[in-house]
Amino acid sequence: MKLIRFGEAGLEKPGVELDGVRYDVSGFVNDYDEDFFAGDALVQLQSTFDKEKAPIVSNIIRLGAPVKRPGKIICIGLNYRKHAAESGMDEPAEPVVFFKATSSMMGPNDTIIIPKNSRKTDWEVELAVVIGKRANYISKEEALDHVAGYMLHNDVSEREFQIERGGQWVKGKSCDTFAPLGPYLVTNDEVADPNNMRLWLTLNGKKMQDGNTSDFIFNVQHVVSYLSQFMSLMPGDIISTGTPEGVGFGQKPPFYLKDGDVIELGIDDLGSAKQEVQDYAS
Amino acid sequence: MKLIRFGEAGLEKPGVELDGVRYDVSGFVNDYDEDFFAGDALVQLQSTFDKEKAPIVSNIIRLGAPVKRPGKIICIGLNYRKHAAESGMDEPAEPVVFFKATSSMMGPNDTIIIPKNSRKTDWEVELAVVIGKRANYISKEEALDHVAGYMLHNDVSEREFQIERGGQWVKGKSCDTFAPLGPYLVTNDEVADPNNMRLWLTLNGKKMQDGNTSDFIFNVQHVVSYLSQFMSLMPGDIISTGTPEGVGFGQKPPFYLKDGDVIELGIDDLGSAKQEVQDYAS
Repeated sequence: MKLIRFGEAGLEKPGVELDGVRYDVSGFVNDYDEDFFAGDALVQLQSTFDKEKAPIVSNIIRLGAPVKRPGKIICIGLNYRKHAAESGMDEPAEPVVFFKATSSMMGPNDTIIIPKNSRKTDWEVELAVVIGKRANYISKEEALDHVAGYMLHNDVSEREFQIERGGQWVKGKSCDTFAPLGPYLVTNDEVADPNNMRLWLTLNGKKMQDGNTSDFIFNVQHVVSYLSQFMSLMPGDIISTGTPEGVGFGQKPPFYLKDGDVIELGIDDLGSAKQEVQDYAS
Repeated sequence: MKLIRFGEAGLEKPGVELDGVRYDVSGFVNDYDEDFFAGDALVQLQSTFDKEKAPIVSNIIRLGAPVKRPGKIICIGLNYRKHAAESGMDEPAEPVVFFKATSSMMGPNDTIIIPKNSRKTDWEVELAVVIGKRANYISKEEALDHVAGYMLHNDVSEREFQIERGGQWVKGKSCDTFAPLGPYLVTNDEVADPNNMRLWLTLNGKKMQDGNTSDFIFNVQHVVSYLSQFMSLMPGDIISTGTPEGVGFGQKPPFYLKDGDVIELGIDDLGSAKQEVQDYAS
């Protein structure tokens, strides 16, 4: 099932997309939040959804992030072999983990705002995992049972804030609009293999990233199990699994986003998104 | 005003503590969450609270963290001159920022659980700031207008997870039970100067930390203004401002928490807390 949230920013309602048609399910579901994923609401929705009874939503209505503000967004750094190489970094011995502020979340086609004083705002197409069931100290074999589904994510990153401003990466990852998510959350049962999905990103129509999650250094099962050794993964929590090669920082010479740029990105089975880029002031 | 949350973990209700007596205000206030701080509910509570009309809560009832799960917990590293020195680090040129998972929050007197495979679980008494009004690109002069109040925080930290497991600190800061908060949130109007408060911590009755926020490298106004240049600070967000010297990591030789230890900590005007320490298995 494909879960969407639609409507004005901050006032989104839950919906479902089926065969390209969007349906309003706010009569059945409160929202796609921690409580929704923690209970059996998803199973109930999957078993009882009837497209004949749900109002149709116009395809021109704005989409929000498919998950309402979760407890945390955890990101994995340097998780593709070729991206580690372009960053001039060794392949990590174990997953590199950082957080992204949930206040950076927005809809898949909303506008990316280049922050004040930014000179190095960059793109990163990523596969994002949504936790369905609380996870503590779980094995790799158990990991996918704790996953509700998957989403497309652009882990927008300011490289100067991230790397040149005092040690920890979070400063360059958490600016407002730096986490466009969606168009939809595709439930676990409809994704054949999260470790074999093509993902791509274009900048002004030019292909910049074109990878496959089969290039993961640490696959989805490894990452979910690993994180659960350090913290509780809560229902609705988002884990973004890293980006393949082709970011602006890795170009020779590097270049970054500017006002007026247009990004398009997508992942097999998870849809695509389009984001315009604007300076903060404009 | 002193805001408390009381009751069983996960089912806390909002209350007020006045002259050592606790009152249930759940009839007037839903909870101390983002919506509460975003609106004028705090001002209303302060102006209308009548101790004659609010039920008294027994002092033996458990306290929870004074704020319901916020959007983020932001921490400042190495923010006291003497702690930077004991860590063998240079004083940072600008604030070092990392996040702590909100799933690590617990009540002020709950039990700290040493995670599986931990050998270096450590203590850090800190002054935590709670945001009252959304802040973006604000000046130091405006900063305190965006603060709702202050709390006591033990920023429990696993040094091996933090420093020896792959680069970013979040892994050693986010384990369950690693953020005891409270006993209460003291509102802004009752704190004379957040940059001149004594804070202390004892381990099994022995004084380990005894500092003053006047030793801050970056004071509260600086930190709040600084963070707002990188991300939106949302109502209810917690900013923990760093710890003074005297952590286990800084002892010669270093030593860490073990099963059966007892920590007590406090800050001028913000009360004190007591946490027992247990191994995960016990």
